[in-house]
Amino acid sequence: MRIAIQGELGSFSHDAAQRMIPGCKVLACARSSEVFERVKKGSADGAVIPIENSLAGSVAEHLDLLLTHQLFVEHEFKLRIVHNLIAAPGTSLREIRQVYSHPVALDQCRNFFRKHRRIRTVPFYDTAGSVKHVLETNAQDAGGIASRLAAREYGGRILVAGIEDDKRNFTRFFLVRPKARVSPRANKTSIAFSVKNVPGALFKALSVFALRDISLSKIESRPRRGHPFEYVFFADFLRGDDEAARNALRHLAEVADLVKVLGIYPA
Amino acid sequence: MRIAIQGELGSFSHDAAQRMIPGCKVLACARSSEVFERVKKGSADGAVIPIENSLAGSVAEHLDLLLTHQLFVEHEFKLRIVHNLIAAPGTSLREIRQVYSHPVALDQCRNFFRKHRRIRTVPFYDTAGSVKHVLETNAQDAGGIASRLAAREYGGRILVAGIEDDKRNFTRFFLVRPKARVSPRANKTSIAFSVKNVPGALFKALSVFALRDISLSKIESRPRRGHPFEYVFFADFLRGDDEAARNALRHLAEVADLVKVLGIYPA
Repeated sequence: MRIAIQGELGSFSHDAAQRMIPGCKVLACARSSEVFERVKKGSADGAVIPIENSLAGSVAEHLDLLLTHQLFVEHEFKLRIVHNLIAAPGTSLREIRQVYSHPVALDQCRNFFRKHRRIRTVPFYDTAGSVKHVLETNAQDAGGIASRLAAREYGGRILVAGIEDDKRNFTRFFLVRPKARVSPRANKTSIAFSVKNVPGALFKALSVFALRDISLSKIESRPRRGHPFEYVFFADFLRGDDEAARNALRHLAEVADLVKVLGIYPA
Repeated sequence: MRIAIQGELGSFSHDAAQRMIPGCKVLACARSSEVFERVKKGSADGAVIPIENSLAGSVAEHLDLLLTHQLFVEHEFKLRIVHNLIAAPGTSLREIRQVYSHPVALDQCRNFFRKHRRIRTVPFYDTAGSVKHVLETNAQDAGGIASRLAAREYGGRILVAGIEDDKRNFTRFFLVRPKARVSPRANKTSIAFSVKNVPGALFKALSVFALRDISLSKIESRPRRGHPFEYVFFADFLRGDDEAARNALRHLAEVADLVKVLGIYPA
């Protein structure tokens, strides 16, 4: 199976793709819009995309792309984010003077840099890309912070593993595919909906779930692209394709302007 | 007034700060946590922080910091994001071969790069930082994409102004200060609250607004830091410090585990 990801090989998306679909062929794309286009056009069979990080929040661009594309979420997966200091083989920790990585990753490893004050942090656009850069330039006094997979991908060596401050650092990924396929084990549904901008409209929309004792595990409002001051809500509820869920969605369609099921999948 | 911002001088935060508090002295901080610490300790009188972008979504880190710090939102401001191609004086558009900027900014200027196919885009950690870099290295074949202010700050020249694809690109900023002060013109309130993880809990919480015809203009769930699988909701409603709003908040405190008013301010 050919799986498109956004970012360099060795990224956390690459890691998640390999764990979700063992043996898949990963296609690295520079942009998220390209990831969705490839699945739509059939040059990829699916895509693995990060949707939210427990510390950094939702990936808004991916929510927007799910809304505008006819793709379907088939699985979710939570990846523990482990940051490793990676350098060229032969470089020792004592030689490291600068460390490259994405600003979010650098910020999630502050305790490490507090202990090693001689090391300067250098913001870079991508975690795996920082390791690629260090190995390509053959820098002997520099390292990158990225996944274990990035070390393997670019021939780097892990000098210190697990340097992230907070171990409760998870990213939730979706596997999206062109055709809707619902697993018999499905017990979670992701939807997008919009309501009129009047008091109580969201309250009414949520009543369709509350009346049926259906739990929401997430809700988020996003400005609707191209419709200033209108909002789209992205919500997850803890039901698969059963009667209560179908009734709730039918009821929601009565009170909402737009309802789109993004996917029904096992939690 | 000394105003702390996150990022380099010449950034969009710097621009917003100057428009919100004309004549203020801007203190550039590398990290958002540092911005909040400076206000708390009194080495800054306030901070101007981006809270959401109409295309890219919420700045989750700033929501989390508002929850954990005793600071108060006194004003909001919406800044139109205009991206400009900036280079060293003397460089012409024809000479440009590579353009540095934050990946989000590069992605928001795709039409420009489609028209100028000989120009290579190079991801950089910061928009204003990319202009600083081009000017410091005295590159004659490179440019950066950033605000007009960044050109002024680092002595760059704007080669092409307004190259963003979507003109409906706004970032919403907050001015936060150490003491709660409510303007008599205040008509908007930002709160954070959490509810028990049971079906209908959010529905009950929203009823306190719906029953009083109070409009919510935003709601967003965030994982609660250090409390896995618990959520905090960030919401804005369109009322100032009036009786209905006070009643709604008192009612909310009965049904929610935690209620925090982040600020009451003019919309």
